[in-house]
Amino acid sequence: MSFELLATDSVGARRGRLHTARGTVETPTFMPCASVGAVKALSSHEVREAGIELILCNTYHLYLRPGHELIRDLGGLHAFTGWDGPILTDSGGFQVFSLAPLRKITEDGVLFQSHLDGSRHFLSPEKTIAIQQALGADIIMPLDECAPYPISHGEAKDALDRTLRWAERSRDVHKETDQILFGIVQGGIFSDLRERGVREMVRLGFDGYAMGGLSVGETKAEMEEVLEAALPHLPTDRPRYLMGVGTPTDLLVSIGAGVDMFDCVMPTRHGRTGSLFTATGHLNIKGAAYARDPSPVDPSCTCYTCRHYSRAYLRHLFVTGDILGHRLNTLHNLHFYGMLMRQAREAIAEGRFAVLQAETLQRLSSEQISE
Amino acid sequence: MSFELLATDSVGARRGRLHTARGTVETPTFMPCASVGAVKALSSHEVREAGIELILCNTYHLYLRPGHELIRDLGGLHAFTGWDGPILTDSGGFQVFSLAPLRKITEDGVLFQSHLDGSRHFLSPEKTIAIQQALGADIIMPLDECAPYPISHGEAKDALDRTLRWAERSRDVHKETDQILFGIVQGGIFSDLRERGVREMVRLGFDGYAMGGLSVGETKAEMEEVLEAALPHLPTDRPRYLMGVGTPTDLLVSIGAGVDMFDCVMPTRHGRTGSLFTATGHLNIKGAAYARDPSPVDPSCTCYTCRHYSRAYLRHLFVTGDILGHRLNTLHNLHFYGMLMRQAREAIAEGRFAVLQAETLQRLSSEQISE
Repeated sequence: MSFELLATDSVGARRGRLHTARGTVETPTFMPCASVGAVKALSSHEVREAGIELILCNTYHLYLRPGHELIRDLGGLHAFTGWDGPILTDSGGFQVFSLAPLRKITEDGVLFQSHLDGSRHFLSPEKTIAIQQALGADIIMPLDECAPYPISHGEAKDALDRTLRWAERSRDVHKETDQILFGIVQGGIFSDLRERGVREMVRLGFDGYAMGGLSVGETKAEMEEVLEAALPHLPTDRPRYLMGVGTPTDLLVSIGAGVDMFDCVMPTRHGRTGSLFTATGHLNIKGAAYARDPSPVDPSCTCYTCRHYSRAYLRHLFVTGDILGHRLNTLHNLHFYGMLMRQAREAIAEGRFAVLQAETLQRLSSEQISE
Repeated sequence: MSFELLATDSVGARRGRLHTARGTVETPTFMPCASVGAVKALSSHEVREAGIELILCNTYHLYLRPGHELIRDLGGLHAFTGWDGPILTDSGGFQVFSLAPLRKITEDGVLFQSHLDGSRHFLSPEKTIAIQQALGADIIMPLDECAPYPISHGEAKDALDRTLRWAERSRDVHKETDQILFGIVQGGIFSDLRERGVREMVRLGFDGYAMGGLSVGETKAEMEEVLEAALPHLPTDRPRYLMGVGTPTDLLVSIGAGVDMFDCVMPTRHGRTGSLFTATGHLNIKGAAYARDPSPVDPSCTCYTCRHYSRAYLRHLFVTGDILGHRLNTLHNLHFYGMLMRQAREAIAEGRFAVLQAETLQRLSSEQISE
């Protein structure tokens, strides 16, 4: 693994390049969620055409179905899914905390029930690494304790400390492979915990650093405070990943704070519910106003959907429940995110990110989508 | 409109070319069902890549939602849907008889309730033509009375006679336009009625002739008898369309009997339920046997799905309910139908259709899919 920091804007935005076993990722970058091994509704080729270089698959889902050993036996995630670019897998921890109907955390790991069939499973830091090695992702994450919001300082401290101990165990079993291992910093919304979390995680030493436990209900101001407290203590020569974030506005603000990588279900999930991103804010395709509207979703957009289909047709597909609608909407939203990242990268490289950020935030001010 | 009959095989199979306002259709041809203006899950480009030249849209669905006037105001079906090739619209009659919770047939037309909201509507032969003119399809169908199966000879005769009277009214209001108007022959499974239906429909004079009221529950032998009774009395210089048919076996048998055009929901609907067509019969992708199968659905197939994805992955997508699975399955099945038609056309042109038919029916003998 190597991360090249190509440029840093005066406001702190970073333009970089992350080299993985399966190709280079230009940063800042956005990863769509390919939970079970597919960006819902889209083919691999469409994902790439949307400007996406790195996708995220969920270890929890793949471990339960079809199973990491089956995927390993079929040649790993890339052979299985047909996506030949870089893949990041998460640790499974977040889904255990958000989906499993029953879970019990001990120092050794987390016991949980499958949300699919109630079967019981145990994930330890070591097993999480082993599963991700079987899956064969290019970037992997250690098991962490993702605390809920709101939470007391004491509870957040306990979750951080356990996450640090688990991170050390993960690092120790992480063999010399091509897989890039990140450390995940927890600490809730408490700046002192986040700062200490970063310092200790950096002392342990990882290929990259992620901010976990955000985008779970805290305010925008709280999230920004956390980033301000944490990011300055990270080494500049390692990629920084803000997990589960976010809206286009969140992305631009966080890039300005020095974040390099993001993932979020927003473009894909909103696509399936008819919420479409445009350069001037969001548009709900269900709206009766679009029934007779022959214009594309976003006249400034060059995606397949906007080049070939009208708002009227997309609304009709949505109203009649045709799968093609989900797909065209998802394609558009993902292209929007891909384009936003490309614009950010170009602006940072040319020293004009602050201007892009201000102008885009202004244009997006009608954006009504909450996380 | 003009129909060129290019070749007739010794068994009676026909190779032709149907010229429409929006391009030429090579026959025999198969039309997928694009009920509400989209072949479910597929883009226009994918439909074309599957070898499809003509699609069928349902007047009933489009009349109710979004409405034929809205589509007319947006430039017609082609502009609305993004499919720039030839489109055939049905009369709406079949859906009125199969979907509407309440319907009352009078000599003037049919009163029915929408299956969507219970609203009442009246379709006459004249209104059906007017709706299809507003939609702007290239080939349109007159209102017919599609009788159920089983039905008595007397009831079948009444439905045929009404269909003939409605056909005459339809022809009389059909303005000189680029739209090709077919006549639909009814008559149930009764050879005498079918023969008379053909003779009278031909006397009225249409651009093409369709066999309606089949594939509604009758046996294969009954359907073949109907075709034998009816087809010889049709003019050779007009296209012949067998509505709602069918399986790959049905298609090959009917092409041999002299049919030029088909439509059926089978490839698309079966795609969404995981039933996949292959050169050696059908395959249900849900099967546990495919969980670890790295081979494509059909090793002899050149479709996008078979070129990029394994049975194991398609099974996984199906089991997890991912939309991408519906889509890849649909794409494969449609490609299979497109390929079957292409092979039939080539074989007829080269005078070897009987051989192709026999060999293919033999290979497909494991086919378990019923209509």
